[in-house]
Amino acid sequence: MAGNTIGQVFRVTTFGESHGLALGCIVDGCPPGLALTEADMQHDLDRRRPGTSKYTTQRREPDEVKILAGVFEDQTTGTSIGLMIENTDQRSKDYSQIKDLFRPGHADYTYEQKYGVRDYRGGGRSSARETAMRVAAGAIAKKYLKQVHGIEVRAYLSQMGDVSIDTVDWDQVEQNAFFCPDASKVDALDELIRKLKKEGDSIGAKLTVVAENVPVGLGEPVFDRLDADIAHALMGINAVKGVEIGDGFDVVTQRGSEHRDAMSPQGFKSNHAGGILGGISSGQDIVAHLALKPTSSITVPGETINKQGESAEVVTRGRHDPCVGIRAVPIAEAMVAIVLMDHLLRHRAQNADVMTSTPKLK
Amino acid sequence: MAGNTIGQVFRVTTFGESHGLALGCIVDGCPPGLALTEADMQHDLDRRRPGTSKYTTQRREPDEVKILAGVFEDQTTGTSIGLMIENTDQRSKDYSQIKDLFRPGHADYTYEQKYGVRDYRGGGRSSARETAMRVAAGAIAKKYLKQVHGIEVRAYLSQMGDVSIDTVDWDQVEQNAFFCPDASKVDALDELIRKLKKEGDSIGAKLTVVAENVPVGLGEPVFDRLDADIAHALMGINAVKGVEIGDGFDVVTQRGSEHRDAMSPQGFKSNHAGGILGGISSGQDIVAHLALKPTSSITVPGETINKQGESAEVVTRGRHDPCVGIRAVPIAEAMVAIVLMDHLLRHRAQNADVMTSTPKLK
Amino acid sequence: MAGNTIGQVFRVTTFGESHGLALGCIVDGCPPGLALTEADMQHDLDRRRPGTSKYTTQRREPDEVKILAGVFEDQTTGTSIGLMIENTDQRSKDYSQIKDLFRPGHADYTYEQKYGVRDYRGGGRSSARETAMRVAAGAIAKKYLKQVHGIEVRAYLSQMGDVSIDTVDWDQVEQNAFFCPDASKVDALDELIRKLKKEGDSIGAKLTVVAENVPVGLGEPVFDRLDADIAHALMGINAVKGVEIGDGFDVVTQRGSEHRDAMSPQGFKSNHAGGILGGISSGQDIVAHLALKPTSSITVPGETINKQGESAEVVTRGRHDPCVGIRAVPIAEAMVAIVLMDHLLRHRAQNADVMTSTPKLK
Amino acid sequence: MAGNTIGQVFRVTTFGESHGLALGCIVDGCPPGLALTEADMQHDLDRRRPGTSKYTTQRREPDEVKILAGVFEDQTTGTSIGLMIENTDQRSKDYSQIKDLFRPGHADYTYEQKYGVRDYRGGGRSSARETAMRVAAGAIAKKYLKQVHGIEVRAYLSQMGDVSIDTVDWDQVEQNAFFCPDASKVDALDELIRKLKKEGDSIGAKLTVVAENVPVGLGEPVFDRLDADIAHALMGINAVKGVEIGDGFDVVTQRGSEHRDAMSPQGFKSNHAGGILGGISSGQDIVAHLALKPTSSITVPGETINKQGESAEVVTRGRHDPCVGIRAVPIAEAMVAIVLMDHLLRHRAQNADVMTSTPKLK
Repeated sequence: MAGNTIGQVFRVTTFGESHGLALGCIVDGCPPGLALTEADMQHDLDRRRPGTSKYTTQRREPDEVKILAGVFEDQTTGTSIGLMIENTDQRSKDYSQIKDLFRPGHADYTYEQKYGVRDYRGGGRSSARETAMRVAAGAIAKKYLKQVHGIEVRAYLSQMGDVSIDTVDWDQVEQNAFFCPDASKVDALDELIRKLKKEGDSIGAKLTVVAENVPVGLGEPVFDRLDADIAHALMGINAVKGVEIGDGFDVVTQRGSEHRDAMSPQGFKSNHAGGILGGISSGQDIVAHLALKPTSSITVPGETINKQGESAEVVTRGRHDPCVGIRAVPIAEAMVAIVLMDHLLRHRAQNADVMTSTPKLK
Repeated sequence: MAGNTIGQVFRVTTFGESHGLALGCIVDGCPPGLALTEADMQHDLDRRRPGTSKYTTQRREPDEVKILAGVFEDQTTGTSIGLMIENTDQRSKDYSQIKDLFRPGHADYTYEQKYGVRDYRGGGRSSARETAMRVAAGAIAKKYLKQVHGIEVRAYLSQMGDVSIDTVDWDQVEQNAFFCPDASKVDALDELIRKLKKEGDSIGAKLTVVAENVPVGLGEPVFDRLDADIAHALMGINAVKGVEIGDGFDVVTQRGSEHRDAMSPQGFKSNHAGGILGGISSGQDIVAHLALKPTSSITVPGETINKQGESAEVVTRGRHDPCVGIRAVPIAEAMVAIVLMDHLLRHRAQNADVMTSTPKLK
Repeated sequence: MAGNTIGQVFRVTTFGESHGLALGCIVDGCPPGLALTEADMQHDLDRRRPGTSKYTTQRREPDEVKILAGVFEDQTTGTSIGLMIENTDQRSKDYSQIKDLFRPGHADYTYEQKYGVRDYRGGGRSSARETAMRVAAGAIAKKYLKQVHGIEVRAYLSQMGDVSIDTVDWDQVEQNAFFCPDASKVDALDELIRKLKKEGDSIGAKLTVVAENVPVGLGEPVFDRLDADIAHALMGINAVKGVEIGDGFDVVTQRGSEHRDAMSPQGFKSNHAGGILGGISSGQDIVAHLALKPTSSITVPGETINKQGESAEVVTRGRHDPCVGIRAVPIAEAMVAIVLMDHLLRHRAQNADVMTSTPKLK
Repeated sequence: MAGNTIGQVFRVTTFGESHGLALGCIVDGCPPGLALTEADMQHDLDRRRPGTSKYTTQRREPDEVKILAGVFEDQTTGTSIGLMIENTDQRSKDYSQIKDLFRPGHADYTYEQKYGVRDYRGGGRSSARETAMRVAAGAIAKKYLKQVHGIEVRAYLSQMGDVSIDTVDWDQVEQNAFFCPDASKVDALDELIRKLKKEGDSIGAKLTVVAENVPVGLGEPVFDRLDADIAHALMGINAVKGVEIGDGFDVVTQRGSEHRDAMSPQGFKSNHAGGILGGISSGQDIVAHLALKPTSSITVPGETINKQGESAEVVTRGRHDPCVGIRAVPIAEAMVAIVLMDHLLRHRAQNADVMTSTPKLK
């Protein structure tokens, strides 16, 4: 109800503000018998972490995740898994300047109006730092999906400002700080970031998530379609303003004869649908795109008001990413993995009788 | 879990196939004391109905909704509301041709794989006919929102094929069969539809939904953000492949200094955000766009396979819309209204203590 | 949220007042491929129906259930199942006498206070008539449980007033109008009912539900234990004031050495636990007891107040059961069956990887 | 789904095994603006803690709760609250003796069968230690209920073995280690415990929970009745085998004329119903009773089997309560408080329009 939970069978509930004692989450419904240690999550947490490269913010947040419960002798037990990341970088900063201001483009105003009270330190619960726990939970889902079905969920940067990336070489994605799958575009991205830093401004980004080896049949008709739940999960990432499945908004100008994916005895002959038909996975690659707005935390002065409703100017100092979209790559992967994991388990619940085989962990 | 329910406080659960005895739904959690009769729902049902104009399919589906329970002396009682629409046009058609075929672009294949059984008549549960009950439930939400907060949820066609509509005159929307807010574009739309009919093909569409007078504070942070739930609701409509909030995918090339909406003592100075900040409504108009694929039910022959995995050709005869997007206008309004209604009630649950006023029904 | 739904995977949502057009429910999450016709539900509906015998109320409610959707060619399709029972006995009675009165022991006062409005005809939504849909939905669960696992859920009257029934002969239960498993007690029950009718009074009852062949492992630890969910389901039946699992309140005076069920290589050596350990089914018979209060609808005059808060006297005329507990036998079976069905599917969702076998429908 | 969450608006999700690193929980949906510090929870945690008196087990578990998030400047912010209790007493005990045994009366066998893996240290997730987090979460609910409505939720021991307690003096409850409301019975209880310790056996108990000042209207009709949810919450406490509301099982022998509570202009004239009519609170005291089985952890040798299915004998050494029911007093209070809190917020969600007043935090 208060919205800090996602999933129905594989349920992830998170807590934690930017500057509280710790972030944490409970992963409930994970199948028992999955080998799991902190290391399985740390890799993705490190990919998300700011300060990893010169292109992203230089704040130090070691993001070391601890498993508090639900795992015994390095194996999930089927009971709820407790995870925690302590906030180590909590130095008592001076927030007096922004405490009573509503930063434009941020959630300061809406939180204040909704709750009548607000943890103004670093955006509180609306901070991007909150997404660390999603990445940790997503890593569990990714591991299970890979192990049981060979499902692989990966994402990359497909556009930043005017730099559009059309060639996808998965081997390149982890070779640069932009999660850019086209080595020939890295310099252009680099240049754009430098320019923005100099100008104290920021830029939007587009990401693409691909899930391979998804079995046919995941997703529920009507409201909880697989695409609807992916849209929910991706639009729920900070700064996301648009989500597409398959051809997305390009369908507006497409003909039916062009869009529909023909089938042959060898399988589908194209994938305009993005791997989902009638809300249910078709066995093809699932392809989703998301658009992330440019961060509002920039040094260009902004016009705003304070709690008293008076005019004010705000300048966000500090180390901020000129493009928050880059760091969202592991978050987007995590969210899609959580949705797939949940739907895989939901599918088993109702359809075990007609499933031709039940893949096993071991 | 099986996905036929949407909402948490204002909950809508539907049933019904294209050619079963009846479609129905249960609306649970509607506040008591709302004046309600069938007529309140019939208007939107008629707007959605095929056969209304020469541009949409000519099948006759009177779609007459009946209130079976939950309303006493024309007033909601707070108990669950039962709604039903009988399927009157159930003539025993000959389905032998498509019974064993997987129509390309349809959910035939995925339903068959998921359930091992399938009501092949008219698409069964995956039929667009299912959306009638969403419109009925949405009409209840629309009435309540209007009455208690003056919230108005409306939609229009913003693009069909290459015909893009940029001028919005709400008075025009109901004056033509396209829900087109620009009278000067109606001829071009008309021409396009005629051309498609002749060619036996179809086209995609883009719709825009606007909600006015939404109070500040609706939406829950983290997973159940208002934008995430709107994305879930809109992506859950048949044929939708993309959803945008505010500037949507345009943010990819925007600067932070351009995108963030400045605030002055008189209010926000722009609305790039589409009325939602940090997942919570800001009091500005909520603006969402959605892209609908061209229907796959066309007379252009399509390549496919049958249940035995053999090659086959499929031609969809019968009366089908060349642009299913048009009829989705009242459906999109209904889905956004259901989401807003649900979040309005959710907000009250947790935040009643800090709400400055509780609007009353009377 | 508004409480008209039970279950998480196998979800039952109901609507309908005592005197509305119809009662109905949606059963969502039923596995596909189950053979199902109206006849499968009608038997239990007839067992519940008033007017069946001379011992229960003589109102005529044919309770004919119709399947509106979700079943195709007499087989469940996996989509939501719509069920309806039309209210045929809606003659416009004169309710002017009780319209403004709060009948003691009824929900008139609490409904009025909660909702500010109330369907006063026959108790509206609080009428026992509402339970008909539970019985219909429960019949689907019973059929599936029986077919896939051989699970049998049955109930009987174990006490009425001072007449306690200790001998259980399942063959007797359906041989008399009391669902009494001991033929030698039928005369005493008969006599008690006659006496109460003459006095215009009513009496409480105790029922026992037994589920056989339940596999080990159903139920979730901590909050959604199998016993907790059974308690929720049984306490949710009109008039129920107490629920016990296994030895129930007798445990208060038991020693640990006496209560705990020893295990041998041949299995458990006793069943004080009632088939549930740590909230999870142990493979033994699940045994639950419930206590139902005497109906407040009696001809003995009762002291009460009206809507204006003034003193008033109420006499409930009409045909009412002197012991509502009797008719609750099929309802109690239905509720336990729904809970078991739900937990069976929940169990499969998370634990499919470790289940040694997945029973199949066919 | 996996059952580690309770509540719909006020949601409590817990994690933690007996011997893991920590226990924790997330309280989601708590209204903002509630003053809250660790001290508010510590009092009830101390009441639950073993080792508090000579009558309960002497294990040292300091149970110090930490607020990790969701509270800012000693006030709830409306975001999810993270709580943690570190397990300090984790000395590496030798579990080799019970590792492969299924202790009779414990959940060892059912967990092993359900999950295929089991944290055998101290019962793992099925340990009574898990209830510490319920008490912490319940303390938040208790504080809010008290502050906003003056609702008070308290419990006491009403029977232990044959020692029945009929006189209730609330002032006595916290004056003795048994939560016994009748000073004259303390010696008898003391004697019984000594006897059991000597014999290495245990005994059951009955508790009574009373909630005062509950407003009329809490609870939802049909499935989520207030009494049904209380039954769910109480039956979900370890060792509970029976739950009663109001007169409970005594209704079996009552007449309708005796049971139904008459109303006068001054209010109800009796409270057989236990404060709930039709599943909705009536404004009277809510009264519930629960029966707890005697612990199976006794030194009397028990007959059982090991994982290989061979006969074995088990003797539970260590410091265990002869009556676990005593320590359940604060747990029962917590569970009822959580249910009331949840229903209070649920009620506001749907019925704000008809509520005559919205109580405020401040």
